Amino acid sequence: VVENTSNETPLDPLPSWNEGKSKTAILSFIKSSTDTTSNNFVPVEDRIAVFDNDGTLWSEQPAYFQLFFAIDRIKAMASDHPEWKDQQPYKAVLEGDMKALMASGERGLIELVMTSHAGMTTDEFQQIVTDWIATAKHPRFDRPYNELVYQPMLELLDFLRANAFKTFIVSGGGVEFMRPWAEAVYGIPKDQIVGSSIKTKFEIKEGVPQITRLPEIDFIDDKSGKPVGIWKFIGRRPIFCGGNSDGDLQMMQYTASSKYKSMMLYVHHTDSVREWAYDRQSHIGQFDKGLDEAKAKGWNLVSMKDDWKSIYTFD
Amino acid sequence: VVENTSNETPLDPLPSWNEGKSKTAILSFIKSSTDTTSNNFVPVEDRIAVFDNDGTLWSEQPAYFQLFFAIDRIKAMASDHPEWKDQQPYKAVLEGDMKALMASGERGLIELVMTSHAGMTTDEFQQIVTDWIATAKHPRFDRPYNELVYQPMLELLDFLRANAFKTFIVSGGGVEFMRPWAEAVYGIPKDQIVGSSIKTKFEIKEGVPQITRLPEIDFIDDKSGKPVGIWKFIGRRPIFCGGNSDGDLQMMQYTASSKYKSMMLYVHHTDSVREWAYDRQSHIGQFDKGLDEAKAKGWNLVSMKDDWKSIYTFD
Ligand SMILES: [Ca+2]
Ligand SMILES: [Ca+2]
Repeated sequence: VVENTSNETPLDPLPSWNEGKSKTAILSFIKSSTDTTSNNFVPVEDRIAVFDNDGTLWSEQPAYFQLFFAIDRIKAMASDHPEWKDQQPYKAVLEGDMKALMASGERGLIELVMTSHAGMTTDEFQQIVTDWIATAKHPRFDRPYNELVYQPMLELLDFLRANAFKTFIVSGGGVEFMRPWAEAVYGIPKDQIVGSSIKTKFEIKEGVPQITRLPEIDFIDDKSGKPVGIWKFIGRRPIFCGGNSDGDLQMMQYTASSKYKSMMLYVHHTDSVREWAYDRQSHIGQFDKGLDEAKAKGWNLVSMKDDWKSIYTFD
Repeated sequence: VVENTSNETPLDPLPSWNEGKSKTAILSFIKSSTDTTSNNFVPVEDRIAVFDNDGTLWSEQPAYFQLFFAIDRIKAMASDHPEWKDQQPYKAVLEGDMKALMASGERGLIELVMTSHAGMTTDEFQQIVTDWIATAKHPRFDRPYNELVYQPMLELLDFLRANAFKTFIVSGGGVEFMRPWAEAVYGIPKDQIVGSSIKTKFEIKEGVPQITRLPEIDFIDDKSGKPVGIWKFIGRRPIFCGGNSDGDLQMMQYTASSKYKSMMLYVHHTDSVREWAYDRQSHIGQFDKGLDEAKAKGWNLVSMKDDWKSIYTFD
């Protein structure tokens, strides 16, 4: 917490959040969990905060950004793979059939990237993602995808870290798609980014030890996979969980079962003008069971329209 | 690095290390990788140090300490499992057949604990390990096992962290056997402890969200599994690697292939009086191919007898 020595108003750690229930709840949660005289005090090693990525830290419309990446990659590689013209799911990509692709979900996307990039080293793949994120542009905003991160959530991440929370991403997206750029954008180190993954193997290639990508799913970090991923990679129950969809419900439940007072924060996409408005009926980021449970249990529902002064860093 | 403002000798960050080649190499490596004017300067985010555990940070004789844990557990549970008397590997445990047990290696140990503790929640298992480490005693030293950690390595871990290195354990041992006590002993957070693991699932048990242990191996973090584990959990090549056996060779090779100047440090068990002396012929911590490659490539060989002033914290 930033403090002034004078009588001026203390600096606001969440300047992009409008005054209201959500902002008050965050400030009060962090105050009580870091105050040694509070009943809700949490020792530093247990201050674990987990965040979903798509739709929670950056946008996910009109399709998961990883889908645009996959499409660009399949198109770039198509000349070396004439057989893809008649092979699904490549055919759908090359014909621009977005509907079929979106129906395959995050697992389908990971499989698409996995099968097309099998045999490549992880170093090579990392470079491909780095190049793509530096050059590709979002269709609506005509800006790099990693500029479509939510300014209020960046402030929340910073505020948590300033209070000795350790921040993690726990996303259904591919871990190798996130790590090359997420560290710089969110201030979250690569080893604190958990995601879906493929199997790899170690081998010496032309004299250089390498990790090579295999065409086999290792772990799907979605729904009940999220608390499993939290246990596997983090090894303790979080006390703060941020998400936006039914895919985050199980990690919300897991966080809610902490022995400490914990905070469950759902980002609700309510702003059809500055971002997108969707919830129960959406096939991307469907928020239905999670919305019911958040209301029933009094979890924190953040309305992007009402709670956020600005959405993006460029607003 | 601790500095004095006077003309006194600066405080020694490695007081349990004798002056010599190993100590000089460590001091010089850390100096050059943290000096912004050096050609070997490494940015903070790339200062990743990985350490094997058994035989590198704590002893592993007369058998892996996890084996003593497994034996104690099987004996404690035997009255509820009369069928174990005639079933291997339980029969060997109950009859005290150490030779058969040791032949099964770290994988066999993990399977033994896995099958006997399937269906238990990870919270329950964590409590069992915590209770065991607090009460069990090492047969030779009659002290808790987690007092058999190497004082010189604790100093090295501290020294690395004081120079903004992020320290990780990358061990063939079970991650759930290490996490409950290793954080306090080594100053390494649970999420920076990588090890062999079993599969788990998320479920609501009597109203409480739990992670339950399943009788299936998820990942064996040994030999070529170690660099795979490093990529999976850390996401970048280390620049410092500590190990003691052939099981660490592949992660040494991976570390040696960093784009930065990296340091590979092998602990050689040469002290038959204060600890144990073993290498090429040992079935625990066999050090044969690794010893050859360390010599051929000029990696750092630490002789416990010659390089370490004291072995344990209680010496
Ligand atoms: Ca999401
Ligand atoms: Ca070892």
